[in-house]
Amino acid sequence: MNFCSSCGSAVSLTIPAGDDRERYVCVSCEAIHYTNPRVIVGCLPVYEGRVLLCRRAIEPRRNFWTLPAGFMENGETSAGGAARETWEEAEAKAIDLQLYRIFDVPHISQLYMFYRCGLEDGAFGAGPESLESALFDEADVPWDEIAFPVVYKALKEYFDDRRRGEYPVRVSSIERLKRPPA
Amino acid sequence: MNFCSSCGSAVSLTIPAGDDRERYVCVSCEAIHYTNPRVIVGCLPVYEGRVLLCRRAIEPRRNFWTLPAGFMENGETSAGGAARETWEEAEAKAIDLQLYRIFDVPHISQLYMFYRCGLEDGAFGAGPESLESALFDEADVPWDEIAFPVVYKALKEYFDDRRRGEYPVRVSSIERLKRPPA
Ligand SMILES: [Zn+2]
Ligand SMILES: [Zn+2]
Repeated sequence: MNFCSSCGSAVSLTIPAGDDRERYVCVSCEAIHYTNPRVIVGCLPVYEGRVLLCRRAIEPRRNFWTLPAGFMENGETSAGGAARETWEEAEAKAIDLQLYRIFDVPHISQLYMFYRCGLEDGAFGAGPESLESALFDEADVPWDEIAFPVVYKALKEYFDDRRRGEYPVRVSSIERLKRPPA
Repeated sequence: MNFCSSCGSAVSLTIPAGDDRERYVCVSCEAIHYTNPRVIVGCLPVYEGRVLLCRRAIEPRRNFWTLPAGFMENGETSAGGAARETWEEAEAKAIDLQLYRIFDVPHISQLYMFYRCGLEDGAFGAGPESLESALFDEADVPWDEIAFPVVYKALKEYFDDRRRGEYPVRVSSIERLKRPPA
């Protein structure tokens, strides 16, 4: 950040009065420009026991498989955003959303929220950011071609939880992004 | 937003290629300036069966009682932020944090996350944004002087859950901020 989005003057990194950390403060109008973590909302859609994954058409991790997810937008709920992403990336209507998994990723200031859900009519397709979508039984999940550690972990836990028959909401932190074990 | 924070030129509200909603886009360097919901993290601290509340020293809702909470900062986890706010507002060390309550507040693009927690040594005080802090039994909570609907609702649910002996993680949406019933 170099310039004030309100008045166009330069900003400088200083600790405002009454604050305890550096913020971008306008040297002219004194506006304080906060930056905060962003929320990524997504779904873990299940239909007839199989999980819906999308193969990414875009970087990063093009060609790898992921759950439908993306940045939460202003004016929507977390579940609403998760359903929107499922529609946009997999052309699938998420139903019966239940909060399932939260990941803190502090080193990139992100917070993931995944909802378990069903799929209306079992229908799906591929949105512009996906090469294809498909439903997978546990044994058929392309475990060594999963795009992101949070997706790998959420899927593994889901199948474990299903064997136990309970789906507790979990929160944990991912300290540094690593590739899932091949 | 009037000016590009990267180059200082004017921005205009337009729908970028491949997007489906208006963003602030720089007319000069073409940077897209996204704005996203902000996360508010807080604690519901309990010590020997009583709940810790803080009386607000600042607007909005000065003099009203609240749970320690505030905007999640870059580089921290949601639980870490909730504990930080508990320290800053109530000079209390939150321990054993358990995710408890999520509120979507889409009309102001906010997401609340409350953690249940204990208090180390039962110690607390009042940070600069609080006039005082105090532990309350259910019957003594100042129900008609609670600052925010999300706090009122989280507290009511907590005492109900405690009678039942289980604390499910709940998510719901608050469509418009209303005062709690007096
Ligand atoms: Zn300015
Ligand atoms: Zn620019």
